[in-house]
Amino acid sequence: MTAPTAPAAAADLTITEVRLTPILVADPPLLNTQGVHQPYTPRLIIEIETAGGVTGIGETYGDTKYLELAEPFAERLPGRRVSDLNGLFTLADQVGVDGSHIDTAVDVGGLRGVQTEDKLRLSVVSGFEVACLDALGKALGQPVHELLGGKVRDRVEYSAYLFYRWAAHPEGVTAETDDWGAAVDPAGVVEQARKFKERYGFTSFKLKGGVFPPEEEIAAVRALAEAFPGHPLRLDPNGAWSVETSLKVAAELSGVLEYLEDPTLTTEGMAQVSAHTDVLLATNMCVTTFGEIKEAFTRDAVQVVLSDHHYWGGLRNTRELAAICGAFGVGVSMHSNTHLGISLAAMTHVAATVPDLHHACDSHYPWQSEDVLTERLTFTDGGVRVSDAPGLGVELDRDRLAALHRRWLDDDGTMRSRDDEAAMRVAEPDWRTPAVPRW
Amino acid sequence: MTAPTAPAAAADLTITEVRLTPILVADPPLLNTQGVHQPYTPRLIIEIETAGGVTGIGETYGDTKYLELAEPFAERLPGRRVSDLNGLFTLADQVGVDGSHIDTAVDVGGLRGVQTEDKLRLSVVSGFEVACLDALGKALGQPVHELLGGKVRDRVEYSAYLFYRWAAHPEGVTAETDDWGAAVDPAGVVEQARKFKERYGFTSFKLKGGVFPPEEEIAAVRALAEAFPGHPLRLDPNGAWSVETSLKVAAELSGVLEYLEDPTLTTEGMAQVSAHTDVLLATNMCVTTFGEIKEAFTRDAVQVVLSDHHYWGGLRNTRELAAICGAFGVGVSMHSNTHLGISLAAMTHVAATVPDLHHACDSHYPWQSEDVLTERLTFTDGGVRVSDAPGLGVELDRDRLAALHRRWLDDDGTMRSRDDEAAMRVAEPDWRTPAVPRW
Repeated sequence: MTAPTAPAAAADLTITEVRLTPILVADPPLLNTQGVHQPYTPRLIIEIETAGGVTGIGETYGDTKYLELAEPFAERLPGRRVSDLNGLFTLADQVGVDGSHIDTAVDVGGLRGVQTEDKLRLSVVSGFEVACLDALGKALGQPVHELLGGKVRDRVEYSAYLFYRWAAHPEGVTAETDDWGAAVDPAGVVEQARKFKERYGFTSFKLKGGVFPPEEEIAAVRALAEAFPGHPLRLDPNGAWSVETSLKVAAELSGVLEYLEDPTLTTEGMAQVSAHTDVLLATNMCVTTFGEIKEAFTRDAVQVVLSDHHYWGGLRNTRELAAICGAFGVGVSMHSNTHLGISLAAMTHVAATVPDLHHACDSHYPWQSEDVLTERLTFTDGGVRVSDAPGLGVELDRDRLAALHRRWLDDDGTMRSRDDEAAMRVAEPDWRTPAVPRW
Repeated sequence: MTAPTAPAAAADLTITEVRLTPILVADPPLLNTQGVHQPYTPRLIIEIETAGGVTGIGETYGDTKYLELAEPFAERLPGRRVSDLNGLFTLADQVGVDGSHIDTAVDVGGLRGVQTEDKLRLSVVSGFEVACLDALGKALGQPVHELLGGKVRDRVEYSAYLFYRWAAHPEGVTAETDDWGAAVDPAGVVEQARKFKERYGFTSFKLKGGVFPPEEEIAAVRALAEAFPGHPLRLDPNGAWSVETSLKVAAELSGVLEYLEDPTLTTEGMAQVSAHTDVLLATNMCVTTFGEIKEAFTRDAVQVVLSDHHYWGGLRNTRELAAICGAFGVGVSMHSNTHLGISLAAMTHVAATVPDLHHACDSHYPWQSEDVLTERLTFTDGGVRVSDAPGLGVELDRDRLAALHRRWLDDDGTMRSRDDEAAMRVAEPDWRTPAVPRW
């Protein structure tokens, strides 16, 4: 044994400065039940500096309504400690928001069920929590997973997130391009899946549905099953179907799907579907807050909860959700919305610490050609290696950040809040988000 | 802003040595439904040293069956990191135990429902988890509450834990003495409560019942209500009553009790009581593991879970339990069995981080005249101040530890496993733990 050294002087964890940088990042023309992704989607990058000289970074939704909450929240952080994570929630409760303008209809940006002030608030806090954990880890020399009790695996498995999509955004629209090509039928979906497998090694596939009539989406799933035998498959129409339609699809795809995700809206609807199928139901729409758990679990409405640390208020809350799921025999995995590498790193750290993670996590990351990191995270054999570097283990590229912020500054406001319905109207002027159930 | 300093070099968190020290500590003749506390009760003190030169301490049950599990567990820790807290549970699963000799009847020592190998295992892990957290906090310069996300209160409120008791252990028995006197009737209970209030400022009172016929215990609670108007009162007969008796007592004490604790055994029994009374039911007997939660919560069998970090596997699991309770609208507070200052410090740290803690926690600590700390923790106005010193904020007194270990070594084996029934037979040779329900 080497001679013991005295413990290091405690790092000064006091927050001295918080910087919020809204950005616009390129997004491909991915289709969903609401419409199509805009050419650029808003994200908010959060930097938290400590007196000890470290900076933590976080990322969350960047739509104007989130920014309006993030700004007063950020102002109150200096003087607090990055280790005071429980206090973030007390603080959030104190930062009032005028909720009168919040559209309580289904949230288009997040496709996350009914939007409430609480949900917005938690999504905002999540970005700050991750930035605090990153700073804390850097200050203490600990990777974020270690701040969460330590990893129980060295890599986290992700699924390929397949989308119906066009080859490019509508003509005349300023947008980045990519080489993925269109996917609007079973053959296109299989081809996209093949690329995902080639490029990243994914072995689970999730198809975002709710775009075409159920028969066509069933055909796409069957084509995937044929092309990739033994690969777990999921279909997620974002609540576009009635209970009756959900049950018909479930019957058709029983034995084919790993799980069916949010076939219909509301816990009531999901419970009705669940009662009459052996297909596992997953959700990131009817269970997105702690308050929604009790009814869903006692009614056995869902068998898998897809956590999203942005929704749930961060990585520690995600672990608590996993513990609740564990106690009730409900599976847990991860949902994803358009996000960058900071959030992928955060997702990977927390996923590495959850013992009962038996389904590959979702991630939009492969669709994001732009990032704010000096080095992008990579998928190998469908997984991301868990970093053991202090904090999240990623580094902000200030030039990239500045460029994407410039795009946000230059925007006339049309892209600053994600609106898939409006984006669709550029191609189809009469488009209106269909009433649900659509089928 | 001062000039930023570079982050300190990471502390070496590798475990180099683990020391287990079984001890016997003095315990007064406190009565319960099983019998009476022995003059000395076994506890296990755990020390974990890191390569970085810090030592963390933990405490758990010291009965032989716990020691048998703790020893092989301790042997596997060197080389691991004190920050690898999730890994403790994986490790515990790997440490086999011959469960054939485990008495699956109600655990006399813990009065914690049916005893299983899993429960023993978690109780053992809890002591190591606390020692790891203490070491980690010392190494990083963080109090344990900060490792749990930060305190949300500066002091934790405790209740006075009233016991029917004799003035002294039976004649001829080696035992320490104290000045509390006997309490075997309502007047004695009120006098004991008065002393608790004078000495420590407690304003909540819990009476350990199941000792005398329910009418006498009801009378004691009524006497307390009269002597201390407005003070929350609890009664805990440790499952000694039938459902019918439980309902009669609940009816008599409706409006008087803050809650009724484990009036009857099993979730089934508690659910039957709960269905027919408006008195809140608390438990530390039918919900003591994550596997027992689902049935109890879906049946509304209990309204308050009394967590015990020893039972649940440590402080982080206790927080997860609190999160589960929160999601299901079930209250949470803390149970206590005979314990020393290390565990009181641990309880205080975790309790300080749980937002929805609306009932004062239980603690036997005032009954313990002996401790292994250089400085005892103190109750002021019924509460314990949350320490902001690194780790638990307590220091081991090696002389005291050695003296109490010497007592354990000198014991002929009769005290090394707590047996309240056997202790009672010293006074009443024909005593057998009564069959339940006793009344």
